[in-house]
Amino acid sequence: MVLRAAVAGASGYAGGEILRLLVGHPEVEIGALTGHSNAGQRLGALQPQLAPLAERVLEPTATEVLSGHDVVFLALPHGQSAAVAAELGEDVLVVDCGADFRLTDPADWQKFYGTPHAGSWPYGLPELPGARAALTGARRVAVPGCYPTAVSLALFPAYAAALAEPEAVIVAATGTSGAGKALKPHLLGSEVMGSMSPYGVGGTHRHTPEMIQNLSAVAGEPVSVSFTPTLAPMSRGILATCSARARPGLTAEALRAAYGKAYQDEPFVHLLPEGQWPSTAAVYGANSVLLQVAYDEAAGRIIVVAAVDNLTKGTAGGAVQSMNLALGLPEGMGLPTIGVAP
Amino acid sequence: MVLRAAVAGASGYAGGEILRLLVGHPEVEIGALTGHSNAGQRLGALQPQLAPLAERVLEPTATEVLSGHDVVFLALPHGQSAAVAAELGEDVLVVDCGADFRLTDPADWQKFYGTPHAGSWPYGLPELPGARAALTGARRVAVPGCYPTAVSLALFPAYAAALAEPEAVIVAATGTSGAGKALKPHLLGSEVMGSMSPYGVGGTHRHTPEMIQNLSAVAGEPVSVSFTPTLAPMSRGILATCSARARPGLTAEALRAAYGKAYQDEPFVHLLPEGQWPSTAAVYGANSVLLQVAYDEAAGRIIVVAAVDNLTKGTAGGAVQSMNLALGLPEGMGLPTIGVAP
Amino acid sequence: MVLRAAVAGASGYAGGEILRLLVGHPEVEIGALTGHSNAGQRLGALQPQLAPLAERVLEPTATEVLSGHDVVFLALPHGQSAAVAAELGEDVLVVDCGADFRLTDPADWQKFYGTPHAGSWPYGLPELPGARAALTGARRVAVPGCYPTAVSLALFPAYAAALAEPEAVIVAATGTSGAGKALKPHLLGSEVMGSMSPYGVGGTHRHTPEMIQNLSAVAGEPVSVSFTPTLAPMSRGILATCSARARPGLTAEALRAAYGKAYQDEPFVHLLPEGQWPSTAAVYGANSVLLQVAYDEAAGRIIVVAAVDNLTKGTAGGAVQSMNLALGLPEGMGLPTIGVAP
Amino acid sequence: MVLRAAVAGASGYAGGEILRLLVGHPEVEIGALTGHSNAGQRLGALQPQLAPLAERVLEPTATEVLSGHDVVFLALPHGQSAAVAAELGEDVLVVDCGADFRLTDPADWQKFYGTPHAGSWPYGLPELPGARAALTGARRVAVPGCYPTAVSLALFPAYAAALAEPEAVIVAATGTSGAGKALKPHLLGSEVMGSMSPYGVGGTHRHTPEMIQNLSAVAGEPVSVSFTPTLAPMSRGILATCSARARPGLTAEALRAAYGKAYQDEPFVHLLPEGQWPSTAAVYGANSVLLQVAYDEAAGRIIVVAAVDNLTKGTAGGAVQSMNLALGLPEGMGLPTIGVAP
Repeated sequence: MVLRAAVAGASGYAGGEILRLLVGHPEVEIGALTGHSNAGQRLGALQPQLAPLAERVLEPTATEVLSGHDVVFLALPHGQSAAVAAELGEDVLVVDCGADFRLTDPADWQKFYGTPHAGSWPYGLPELPGARAALTGARRVAVPGCYPTAVSLALFPAYAAALAEPEAVIVAATGTSGAGKALKPHLLGSEVMGSMSPYGVGGTHRHTPEMIQNLSAVAGEPVSVSFTPTLAPMSRGILATCSARARPGLTAEALRAAYGKAYQDEPFVHLLPEGQWPSTAAVYGANSVLLQVAYDEAAGRIIVVAAVDNLTKGTAGGAVQSMNLALGLPEGMGLPTIGVAP
Repeated sequence: MVLRAAVAGASGYAGGEILRLLVGHPEVEIGALTGHSNAGQRLGALQPQLAPLAERVLEPTATEVLSGHDVVFLALPHGQSAAVAAELGEDVLVVDCGADFRLTDPADWQKFYGTPHAGSWPYGLPELPGARAALTGARRVAVPGCYPTAVSLALFPAYAAALAEPEAVIVAATGTSGAGKALKPHLLGSEVMGSMSPYGVGGTHRHTPEMIQNLSAVAGEPVSVSFTPTLAPMSRGILATCSARARPGLTAEALRAAYGKAYQDEPFVHLLPEGQWPSTAAVYGANSVLLQVAYDEAAGRIIVVAAVDNLTKGTAGGAVQSMNLALGLPEGMGLPTIGVAP
Repeated sequence: MVLRAAVAGASGYAGGEILRLLVGHPEVEIGALTGHSNAGQRLGALQPQLAPLAERVLEPTATEVLSGHDVVFLALPHGQSAAVAAELGEDVLVVDCGADFRLTDPADWQKFYGTPHAGSWPYGLPELPGARAALTGARRVAVPGCYPTAVSLALFPAYAAALAEPEAVIVAATGTSGAGKALKPHLLGSEVMGSMSPYGVGGTHRHTPEMIQNLSAVAGEPVSVSFTPTLAPMSRGILATCSARARPGLTAEALRAAYGKAYQDEPFVHLLPEGQWPSTAAVYGANSVLLQVAYDEAAGRIIVVAAVDNLTKGTAGGAVQSMNLALGLPEGMGLPTIGVAP
Repeated sequence: MVLRAAVAGASGYAGGEILRLLVGHPEVEIGALTGHSNAGQRLGALQPQLAPLAERVLEPTATEVLSGHDVVFLALPHGQSAAVAAELGEDVLVVDCGADFRLTDPADWQKFYGTPHAGSWPYGLPELPGARAALTGARRVAVPGCYPTAVSLALFPAYAAALAEPEAVIVAATGTSGAGKALKPHLLGSEVMGSMSPYGVGGTHRHTPEMIQNLSAVAGEPVSVSFTPTLAPMSRGILATCSARARPGLTAEALRAAYGKAYQDEPFVHLLPEGQWPSTAAVYGANSVLLQVAYDEAAGRIIVVAAVDNLTKGTAGGAVQSMNLALGLPEGMGLPTIGVAP
């Protein structure tokens, strides 16, 4: 069985990464590739790293182009997925890398995006409690945001085991590809190289409600999230430093045991040996998550640091992993687990 | 009046930055430059950026070399300053860029450094309450650590105005020069480029007690600090993201007013206009601090982000600023206030 | 005597660097700052590194704004300087950082820029033979391109001493600030970090005729130039690797002697000791040029490598150095000679 | 058939990259991993990106450890391969990533390495004329140096078609991983970020005779090479800018045709469409080479720019490609052809 996959938004960073993974996937054949302003162009001119697909030409993002595939990946600007998905049959697997179907609460969507809520789909983070079951056989998948992927995996075991107070503080550094190919002055190489800067401070970043949703669901009570994203001088990678006040009586052993148990059977999430901390370089291009935890007794806080590649596990790898689950393929098929380092 | 200044440890990053600033200082003449393993070498071979001093030769770090100067800057490994300073007369101004005389509590020193406590000197962060008076006319100065410079300036106004609960959470990114020229595998360019990683997590970094000391003094009560430093792919700069739970009744206006008042007369600390956030690039090579504050009502926290150059305001600039105060010179003499950007 | 200086194009990288230098210049007071699409904005929003000028507001680039100054720096897109300069009196010193008045041959201009030739002004590279005299007392100055600055200084001594065949091969790496703040996809941080790429290959870069002009003038015969610029993952700096076949009978000693003689009295150009090679880091933010030469006997070629900061000696520093000469000030006034490194 | 492969030198950058590729190779099972000073350590502590092999422990580089494998990859310091290889049976495939067996002329070896010449093995650059035949069925392979890989592929078609004069001028930029994990001051992140610098100028780099050997063999006459390597602020990648005077009568069409013909059937070498130039980002982690050519008529020179990943096609990928040929496997098995970009 070879499945035909289309990618809408193939000229962007998420689309390019999806294609990198699909080329290496033994059960997928690459079908239509679409773009908006880039329709008609050679893929090789836009994504020179995709050498084997260089002669492919982008088509418009239209129903007649996308229909007839087994899987359609949507890597479109936020707010555009609902209309495209509505035109695709219920038997087609639609994997949306946009935000449209991630949030379950319409009020959250309205507050952060300002448009009508399109609904919610099974959430493509299989490592979360209950997620794998919901994804198995699904025909619609909402791929998580890159930050929520890192943060949810960093903190859910602490909340699942009731070890942490429900006020999380998160500071995360991201590579610039997280902002896409948008032509904005602050994303110019001259501005980002040699520089760190925050943005979306004070709870205004759109990934905040998604983190709250995930952590609250696990905790069984509302978890507040103070989230500060920062832009780092690198192309890829997220390093999320997450902390919360420890519940009374916590020990370092209990903390470590909770994380060990949560991830002992997970193929893509690695709790590092004690004393070793993650780096984003080690997951560059891989669908892996590296984690370490510590209990700072003096400050009374649990600290968890997670490293992911925002484009791989944080977007395209998560999408392919979810696709595998939805289609009944081995979950790790076609997914690299080794970072390209140094 | 031209003062003769010696620099002990002139081959390192801190020593090199002190020299860059002193060359531009109108009242200072550069005297002896010393090194340890590099004694006998041309400075130009070790610090090629110091073109006007290229033919100077490093001498050994010895009393007879350092004596006879008006000012001696010590840029030595931690624990070596006390012995050198003891040999210099009480009339000589000694500015120590090491940690030896920063901490006032011997128990803190013992816990984090493991050697006997050498004592404490006037603390070279003039912007802290009371510090400027203590530095005026001083003959011994302890220059703060780079992280405590950024963090103390970021948070002290909130504690001085009793706006924040006494539990600070800090995640800071630093350029690699903060680790000095030590030949360690994780500091190789191949390892750090394109990568973010944490270190000293869980309260183990030696700058933690210094932050606690500064913030507790201002707050008038013990402030706990959860501090996570991270290594960023850049040579210079610290971006410190600091937060604390807001005291009940806080408003965004009161928060901003407290910071405005704290820094309205400070020449080197700039509270940015609302909506603009700092970047480390904007303070590259400058003795400036850029700050922004926000009140995240949903999470109930105050967020302050500060950017400094770890080698300038964070070390050598702070040292020269303190020297100016100690010697009765204009505080800003010889100190660049413009970052080299982009 | 304090001179009032205006900067047209103050929102760009060249304009920002001119302002950084002028703030530190003891004989200059900063007058009008102008922009085009950014007129009306706070400078602090556009150039956050210029903290002391943050509250200055950009005015439109218009004659009435620029007139009444002693010096006007033009940091405008190519082709716009002539019209502005024509409106300024002959007594005003106009220093043009654009290309408009660099080329003496109208055919060269026409071929590479495609518009009518505006003429040529005294050339702001004082280290070239004859240039210093032409700049002294001048009221119009054409600041060289950044690449021609590096390449001309790297190769002219070899041609002046008739040591090299008239066919130069140059490969140069530049930081991204050389391309300005233009919003182009290939200048995004995501694209440039971790990547080297060439552009303008095969003699098509507009700086090529300027190099040919300079080297041919010194050689007294036409010198051909094969020039390949490459974009490097750094914000600033040019490393120019220049070579030419050695004339028969050359010795390494004669080569070194020619460079030693050419630069023995130059304050900003440093021939490094044998065995030490330049790096762009060592001239970061400085008006300095670091050079090294070698004679590869096996290949029969002279190799010269020069490092400059494209924005400092390559643009704004060269502009201020030329201003000093034109106005009879000490040539090095206000110009940093130490790089900000590491 | 599954082959067991050992890697000697598994803690270094080349060894790590070999392992990354072998994990993805369907016909290879990973056997012994050896190190020298790191013997006894967990691989995960040294190569955290190799998550699936994290618990493997390094053994000493000894005959009894390496024997009993079908393939042994040697990623050892130069000069150590001969002794190890001599102990392995003639039926074992030994793929040497060091320099020991690359040069055919003992005088070249002696001049550049200063030790007795060990001999020469089939040269692992299958794209060179005659190389593929020599590699098929071989039991000893000398993997080319990273620079010679890029330069030989960039220039051999021009020499094979007698289009270029036999004097090549090459300036190449490399990522820092090319220098390995050696703890040297100039390789520290603080030194390399934001900086370009040359090294081994004037024909002294040890890869020079290897380039001369390859190009002269194709040209049928001695080709001189002026080679200037430069260190760029990136972890991986080589951008080689190569040029030579055109032979009389050359046309741009003939030049392009020669390259088109040379590479039309090569799976890993891509001559880009006219007007598109290579970047190292596009081959990051891939076994691909991107090439472009131009004829600069004014300067009379052919320019070829090639981008490779020094660790993949330039070392480990070339090694695996040669292994495939030697063992009769499909040449591209297990080799990624898509770069990890952005």
